[in-house]
Amino acid sequence: MNLTIIGGSDAGISAALRAREINKNVDVRVIVADSFPNYSICGLPFYLSGETPEWRQLAHRQIGEIEKEGISILLNHKATLIDPQSKTVACLTPTGQESRTGYDKLILATGAVSAKPPIRGLGQPGVYLLRWMEDGFAIDNYLKSYNPKSALIVGGGYIGMEMADSLTRRGLAVTVVEYADSVMETVDKSFSGIVKVELERRLVQVVNGVAIEGIERIDGKLFVSGSHDFQFKTDMVLVATGCKPSADLAIAIGLETGAKGAIKVNRRMETSFKDIYGAGDCVETWRRIVNRYEYLPLGTTAHKQGRVAGANAVGGRSEFAGSLGTQVVKIFNLVVGRTGLRQSEGVEEGFAAFTEEIEVWDHKAYYPGATKIRIRITGDRDTRKLLGAQVIGSYGSEISKRIDVFATALFHEMTVDELSDLDFSYTPPLSSPWDPVQIAAQSWVKKMVK
Amino acid sequence: MNLTIIGGSDAGISAALRAREINKNVDVRVIVADSFPNYSICGLPFYLSGETPEWRQLAHRQIGEIEKEGISILLNHKATLIDPQSKTVACLTPTGQESRTGYDKLILATGAVSAKPPIRGLGQPGVYLLRWMEDGFAIDNYLKSYNPKSALIVGGGYIGMEMADSLTRRGLAVTVVEYADSVMETVDKSFSGIVKVELERRLVQVVNGVAIEGIERIDGKLFVSGSHDFQFKTDMVLVATGCKPSADLAIAIGLETGAKGAIKVNRRMETSFKDIYGAGDCVETWRRIVNRYEYLPLGTTAHKQGRVAGANAVGGRSEFAGSLGTQVVKIFNLVVGRTGLRQSEGVEEGFAAFTEEIEVWDHKAYYPGATKIRIRITGDRDTRKLLGAQVIGSYGSEISKRIDVFATALFHEMTVDELSDLDFSYTPPLSSPWDPVQIAAQSWVKKMVK
Repeated sequence: MNLTIIGGSDAGISAALRAREINKNVDVRVIVADSFPNYSICGLPFYLSGETPEWRQLAHRQIGEIEKEGISILLNHKATLIDPQSKTVACLTPTGQESRTGYDKLILATGAVSAKPPIRGLGQPGVYLLRWMEDGFAIDNYLKSYNPKSALIVGGGYIGMEMADSLTRRGLAVTVVEYADSVMETVDKSFSGIVKVELERRLVQVVNGVAIEGIERIDGKLFVSGSHDFQFKTDMVLVATGCKPSADLAIAIGLETGAKGAIKVNRRMETSFKDIYGAGDCVETWRRIVNRYEYLPLGTTAHKQGRVAGANAVGGRSEFAGSLGTQVVKIFNLVVGRTGLRQSEGVEEGFAAFTEEIEVWDHKAYYPGATKIRIRITGDRDTRKLLGAQVIGSYGSEISKRIDVFATALFHEMTVDELSDLDFSYTPPLSSPWDPVQIAAQSWVKKMVK
Repeated sequence: MNLTIIGGSDAGISAALRAREINKNVDVRVIVADSFPNYSICGLPFYLSGETPEWRQLAHRQIGEIEKEGISILLNHKATLIDPQSKTVACLTPTGQESRTGYDKLILATGAVSAKPPIRGLGQPGVYLLRWMEDGFAIDNYLKSYNPKSALIVGGGYIGMEMADSLTRRGLAVTVVEYADSVMETVDKSFSGIVKVELERRLVQVVNGVAIEGIERIDGKLFVSGSHDFQFKTDMVLVATGCKPSADLAIAIGLETGAKGAIKVNRRMETSFKDIYGAGDCVETWRRIVNRYEYLPLGTTAHKQGRVAGANAVGGRSEFAGSLGTQVVKIFNLVVGRTGLRQSEGVEEGFAAFTEEIEVWDHKAYYPGATKIRIRITGDRDTRKLLGAQVIGSYGSEISKRIDVFATALFHEMTVDELSDLDFSYTPPLSSPWDPVQIAAQSWVKKMVK
């Protein structure tokens, strides 16, 4: 049996490994569009900042390690067409020739491409997107060759924030322009406000409420213009306004697509065509709590969906358990995480959402190094169910694993009250007898009594 | 209505606060044997090491904060007798007089006392136990007054380990003598071995397999002798061989006791007598997974049991959800945690226990500061249920919160396989697309395939 996978990033390699783990008799072939299978593209901001000096370190695994598991990798092969009748995939090989390869089962793990907002002048030198390894190399080359002193980042989301940190470390004066009225729209205003303060403390300028419209190059400088008469001169522009699914191959053969054009799949990661599976940033994602499919591209999800698709393609019986939208980002010394729904989302989804915010020491204040963290916990007044949580604090204060505790509780549909039942570890250098997670829950519960 | 609580440490104050939170009409009175209600006695090793310079910092709350919640505190009152017929408690007041106080509901939160092993010469100057604030002061006084250069610690459990760290920081040459054949008997040998290496790296001598029998003072030095002709000269001895419940008041009136003489309670924290509740280190604790009552004194459990007892005493309906035996300790730069059952315990309890040990980076190795952590995950081969986990690594590698993720999963009786379904947060400076918790689970699952 032959399993062919188009795409060699998180979902594709995860699928290949799992398929071979379950069934040693299956031939697994991965068609990779570039030379960088299984690279941690989430690490590009750290490569560009200089914190990760060598781009080769970004490989989750070396090619040899993957091949050792009995997986064939076709590098620099661009899949151009799928023929579901003859069960073949056509590729452009590195030498520009077409080759065809047959499959019994096919997994589409084609990922996503950077969104290109309607800005005049994209694509000229000094204006970059950041998604794949080549994007990273292009930016690095520009930084090395032209030594830009300033950069404007379009977009205040996760990548925009990481790149503001990254380019500041690299010595550039950074300005972030975000169309919305705050950066980090994925967390509540009180937290995005803290992020803004941290950015400004690091001398990153933040401009909100402006839509960038055009970029012109005059005398080696980039002139960026936008709504509200925004005018800005800079040496470099990074457009980080999200991504959209790479679904062209799927659309060409009539696979059903859904949210934002992503390939429709069920929780077994089956597409609308028999023997074709999908996983990762090119497909829709089942979301828990709200119980529907959405476009929610994340590396963690890609790994999970790949694992499920890989298992099912070779005869396993696996189901994607769904995403809670758990995310975390480090911006300078600040860590911000979230899982589940926040207040406004809870209300939109029809829950009787109530959110409590607390500030608390990450561990007993009497032990050196304690810092204050803030937790926003959202629950439903009627059912008392936990709906979501956001945590912000300094790097080293175990923000992300506290988010994970919340995520595990959410997965099990716990009530906020029940969080106090959880038996957590405690020593004064690392927590309190009630962990901050539970202190937040108890504070929420107290509000319900009143 | 009057609620009287005997004991002003974790369980007692937790009960008092919860009772007032639920019912503002109840009079709550806490009888405290010393002057230190609501002190974090877990912090004593850090006070003695000098990391926490001022003992007053160890207060979880100031007396004023507790009183502000409408709670009366009787300091330095030693409860001497309970009369369940007349519903009164007799106390010795600070001036040595007897006073009686009536109650409608009574909570026993009398805590524990240090175990005194059969060693000749306990109780002489230079030989200490460590449990209550006064014990800490006595040790601190001795350190300041006599400037001892060396210490021998009897017992390689949690307190023994923390005090080895503490006294080393204080400049003493420390030797730990543990009767068992490894220190940290609560984790598997491969982990206790790592602890031993860390101790020796910090020049703490570790002696295993010796039972200390006697301590003699000759010319200002303490001569410690034990089995296998053990002979040791030191300036100070700390006996840290665990604790036993303070249950004398309860036994005097015929309350039922169980494991290690702890007061029997049900999960509503009711004792065998009507209107008398118990909580904390003086009572038995319901253990999940094995589903039975044991003696398992821990600060976190005391807080939980106090909260349940306080609620139920004033008309609430609350149940103690049970302990998983989750614990963590920091020893020099090493953090060791556990939850649930380890291999040998799993087998003893009749499970088809299998344990997998992995070593993995705490976050992506390409981001600065990554360190390797080790996880031991124990599951049942037949049911695939998670039974427990142990994690060891350096301070800062989010060991304790990973233990908490395992504890939350255990609470919900997840299978090891299902851990891969959990939607955790990820950014390269803080984790991997599969968190180490999931990498351990997947490694366990792989072993089941073979």
